[in-house]
Amino acid sequence: MKKGVLRPGHVQVRVLDLDEAVKHYTEVLGLIETDRDDQGRVYLKAWTEVDKYSLVLRQSDAPGLDYVGYKCLDEAAVERLQQELTEFGCHVEEIPPGELKGCGRRVRFDSPTGHLFELYASKEQTGRWGVGNHNPEAWPRGLRGMKAQRFDHCLLYGPDIAGTIQLFEKVLGFDLAEQVVDNQGNRLAGFLTCGMKAHDVAFIECPEKGKLHHISFLLESWDEVLRAADLISMTDTSIDIGPTRHGITHGKTIYFFDPSGNRNEVFAGGDYFYPDHGPITWDAEQLGKAIFYHDRVLNDAFLSVLT
Amino acid sequence: MKKGVLRPGHVQVRVLDLDEAVKHYTEVLGLIETDRDDQGRVYLKAWTEVDKYSLVLRQSDAPGLDYVGYKCLDEAAVERLQQELTEFGCHVEEIPPGELKGCGRRVRFDSPTGHLFELYASKEQTGRWGVGNHNPEAWPRGLRGMKAQRFDHCLLYGPDIAGTIQLFEKVLGFDLAEQVVDNQGNRLAGFLTCGMKAHDVAFIECPEKGKLHHISFLLESWDEVLRAADLISMTDTSIDIGPTRHGITHGKTIYFFDPSGNRNEVFAGGDYFYPDHGPITWDAEQLGKAIFYHDRVLNDAFLSVLT
Amino acid sequence: MKKGVLRPGHVQVRVLDLDEAVKHYTEVLGLIETDRDDQGRVYLKAWTEVDKYSLVLRQSDAPGLDYVGYKCLDEAAVERLQQELTEFGCHVEEIPPGELKGCGRRVRFDSPTGHLFELYASKEQTGRWGVGNHNPEAWPRGLRGMKAQRFDHCLLYGPDIAGTIQLFEKVLGFDLAEQVVDNQGNRLAGFLTCGMKAHDVAFIECPEKGKLHHISFLLESWDEVLRAADLISMTDTSIDIGPTRHGITHGKTIYFFDPSGNRNEVFAGGDYFYPDHGPITWDAEQLGKAIFYHDRVLNDAFLSVLT
Amino acid sequence: MKKGVLRPGHVQVRVLDLDEAVKHYTEVLGLIETDRDDQGRVYLKAWTEVDKYSLVLRQSDAPGLDYVGYKCLDEAAVERLQQELTEFGCHVEEIPPGELKGCGRRVRFDSPTGHLFELYASKEQTGRWGVGNHNPEAWPRGLRGMKAQRFDHCLLYGPDIAGTIQLFEKVLGFDLAEQVVDNQGNRLAGFLTCGMKAHDVAFIECPEKGKLHHISFLLESWDEVLRAADLISMTDTSIDIGPTRHGITHGKTIYFFDPSGNRNEVFAGGDYFYPDHGPITWDAEQLGKAIFYHDRVLNDAFLSVLT
Repeated sequence: MKKGVLRPGHVQVRVLDLDEAVKHYTEVLGLIETDRDDQGRVYLKAWTEVDKYSLVLRQSDAPGLDYVGYKCLDEAAVERLQQELTEFGCHVEEIPPGELKGCGRRVRFDSPTGHLFELYASKEQTGRWGVGNHNPEAWPRGLRGMKAQRFDHCLLYGPDIAGTIQLFEKVLGFDLAEQVVDNQGNRLAGFLTCGMKAHDVAFIECPEKGKLHHISFLLESWDEVLRAADLISMTDTSIDIGPTRHGITHGKTIYFFDPSGNRNEVFAGGDYFYPDHGPITWDAEQLGKAIFYHDRVLNDAFLSVLT
Repeated sequence: MKKGVLRPGHVQVRVLDLDEAVKHYTEVLGLIETDRDDQGRVYLKAWTEVDKYSLVLRQSDAPGLDYVGYKCLDEAAVERLQQELTEFGCHVEEIPPGELKGCGRRVRFDSPTGHLFELYASKEQTGRWGVGNHNPEAWPRGLRGMKAQRFDHCLLYGPDIAGTIQLFEKVLGFDLAEQVVDNQGNRLAGFLTCGMKAHDVAFIECPEKGKLHHISFLLESWDEVLRAADLISMTDTSIDIGPTRHGITHGKTIYFFDPSGNRNEVFAGGDYFYPDHGPITWDAEQLGKAIFYHDRVLNDAFLSVLT
Repeated sequence: MKKGVLRPGHVQVRVLDLDEAVKHYTEVLGLIETDRDDQGRVYLKAWTEVDKYSLVLRQSDAPGLDYVGYKCLDEAAVERLQQELTEFGCHVEEIPPGELKGCGRRVRFDSPTGHLFELYASKEQTGRWGVGNHNPEAWPRGLRGMKAQRFDHCLLYGPDIAGTIQLFEKVLGFDLAEQVVDNQGNRLAGFLTCGMKAHDVAFIECPEKGKLHHISFLLESWDEVLRAADLISMTDTSIDIGPTRHGITHGKTIYFFDPSGNRNEVFAGGDYFYPDHGPITWDAEQLGKAIFYHDRVLNDAFLSVLT
Repeated sequence: MKKGVLRPGHVQVRVLDLDEAVKHYTEVLGLIETDRDDQGRVYLKAWTEVDKYSLVLRQSDAPGLDYVGYKCLDEAAVERLQQELTEFGCHVEEIPPGELKGCGRRVRFDSPTGHLFELYASKEQTGRWGVGNHNPEAWPRGLRGMKAQRFDHCLLYGPDIAGTIQLFEKVLGFDLAEQVVDNQGNRLAGFLTCGMKAHDVAFIECPEKGKLHHISFLLESWDEVLRAADLISMTDTSIDIGPTRHGITHGKTIYFFDPSGNRNEVFAGGDYFYPDHGPITWDAEQLGKAIFYHDRVLNDAFLSVLT
């Protein structure tokens, strides 16, 4: 929050078949559909989120990430950051209010890793789903599937993560919470936060630009990670790995795929961060343990990211 | 973090018998003793804390709270806030560096509720106990008792919480995350945060000044709340209430007493907060449920707070 | 299983309002209604049970227990036990097949504590609800409320538990797994098992005959005990005590009431038993801890049982 | 318990280095060393076990299983079964009392799969470790590592499991709780129980005789399976697979290896069984899901078992 960026606010993801995707994100992950727009996009939220939506699905002929948006404290913060992004050398574009329903003006910019990000300060708030903010119950009845609690972060990969990390630290006021460094001092991965979470975005170095590793949603507990794993099996959802723990962040996790091949994570727990903590460093030789704490080796799917 | 206040950094508590208290906080709560000073005070930390200590025990002939200290981003923030506190009308006092071992200059001030608080920007960092910040394991072996993870917050009570909440909001940049309001619109309780936690400090209105309800430490999970309850029974520790859940914050909790009669809480989970969320409001008629979500009535110990 | 008694198979309970009771046992506890009969009785089962029902609700003008039935290995076992019960001095009555729908011949008998019990060997099997016995999933989707897994046991109170325990041990082949004994050697409570469970029935000495303390259902885990507690609060169900742990059996538990005032327990975990283990003994001075391990005192509701 | 066999009572395992093995089973699994004998064998128990030991380690030049022993209700049962085993065609051998310290006469026999089993009725009882049977606390302080609760079962493989299952059913009174059957009706695996547990022994068909897949120990909960996985990583213990769930039994599990290469399992939960339940059947085409419920494929280590 040093520069007014509050949190990951939304992510727009491309899917091959919208109906299948909506079914997956609502019935398996337990997100709630809150709107659609005249472009055919579907808006979804997780139940603890105050804003109207955090996931936007867009039908396309190739899966992947369109952009990640960060909510800012106020319009003044967005304006200041727009200026600084331009000075940093980003390609900066303004998206008019209403292009996403209920969302105000967005400032879109690119990163050296080849991803698109956005900043915005206003979005319609529909309140915590089923509980609101007046004598709220512990949780709403009627949740489905994994009962995902919030959109939490993305792990992205591309070239020049050094430049992108500099952008997030210097311009956006993020802190580097964890990193993987090889014995020549090269940073292979960086996990950045704008609040107390172990990460609000993470980057892994790879030659190809603009790649999405996964979008991640928070669960309540390790017990809920088991329920998620059970649901993955019951629904014949494609699993990547887990249940397991990450070394980095120490979150308890499972990876799987939506019907279009976009990787999802649901996780619980994980470390907290304050700006005076300094980054945690993992040696590249320990990368297996850093990523998958129990197996201590990367699986084939993860190895393919690095090449 | 709006005004540079990061987190609750330490609490100094009076105990009747220092040895008994150290035994309680190390063997029952699982804190780690890190130092003692020539005043005889004992310094303890929880294992995930990067700073050297968060709890200071001082032998006295009456239990209770000496002060709560908040760590700030830097000295500049402390200086700005010192000025603003004075302007707000607080009695402000400077404590020289080293009065607490390893801690820099502290700015102490009082609140309308009759409590003493402190701001400081520097304290010796000894790192996460047993794991550090280089290829850190998930948790250290050798933890004892409840394995408390961090000092989390205090619940304080006294008169004029309206004035104190104004002080924390306007001067210190805290946000009101939750409140209890009666049907005349009087605020009976306020829970405030300077980060993403459900509360970094909380106040309940009562006629007597400067009272401590409890000091609270974070646990990993609801399973660990059960282990804590088991340990309370095994060690013949005086229990207040729990395991249960709070309505306010929805944390899973248990209350008990140190050998001097200071109330402790250990808890897990709970809601998260962002500055654009607005406060959650509980009606005073729902106070029982707000405090103890399952029983939905206040126990005798809690009722005595309110009178 | 020494004498062929397998398990608690059903319990018939009187309720004041059948619709309210069905709503409670299905929506709050998560039992499944499987049938009704021309007497107006409602049959319910828990999802892991292979038999068609384990709870029978009968509308009446007073709540309480009609009888508890135990399923036996075969008709030969029932016949042998019928003979032995008569020889022991019980009043023995035969209930014809079909009096409970889908249930074979039942042998009903009374105990010195003034309760009615039954033995039977055949009941229609509908299989594990929603999963069956062919490639069964981990759990069925569509469960409601607390997702109770099985009817587990009853705690009963009345006079002459010594005689009743002798009946269960000598005639029915149960073992005494745990007991509470005062310093004159009087047994105040006995917990008996016919398998590996910590108890299949339990008795507490009290002057009044034929009383029901609670009927108990198994949950998956301590996390599910929390969910149960949350549901009790959300549904304004009357709570007795919990979440907590018992000393006796060490199960994790919560007590609450159905709309007619019959006490329910849901619990998870607990010790296991083998016939060569010998009973665990609790001193009467430790009765508080034996019953409610964390509070270490009996609450008013429990104290009233003893007088 | 139909024929008087109570439970798996001990397993003797060969290890290459006794000191390393003792360190593994005590510090990683959390077993307690209770004795050694003049053959140099080491005796260990898990804390909830009433008997003095359940695991016997014997130094050898090849890892593997010596034998599994089952505790019986009394000597009469052992004698009856000895006769029946001989009639069934087993090679039956009597081991004199005291060959294992504190253990009475054992009747050893072989199975068509090429394993050695034993029956015995008496072994020294040292009581539940650290808690005993008088006002027992919920768990003992001072447990180490995974805090394994009991030796639970073995999974064995070899030829002619049909014959071995017949032996366990017909002679020893076990029930078949679960099975894997191919579309020609051949049974590829059988899980058998002598009580309420999902399995007390399990067999998988394979050409080689007398093989040990794993010895298994019970944990308290899924949270403890995570702790076990963390400890496996922290202690650089070789992992096979997990944390995950089995389809068969639905237990939550992790597989790893002792320093000699013997596979260990620790697991929590799982289905319960009664003799009137009939077996659960898994289709061979679903074998992946039956064994590893989340991944739904066999890993290389498991595939090698089948060939």
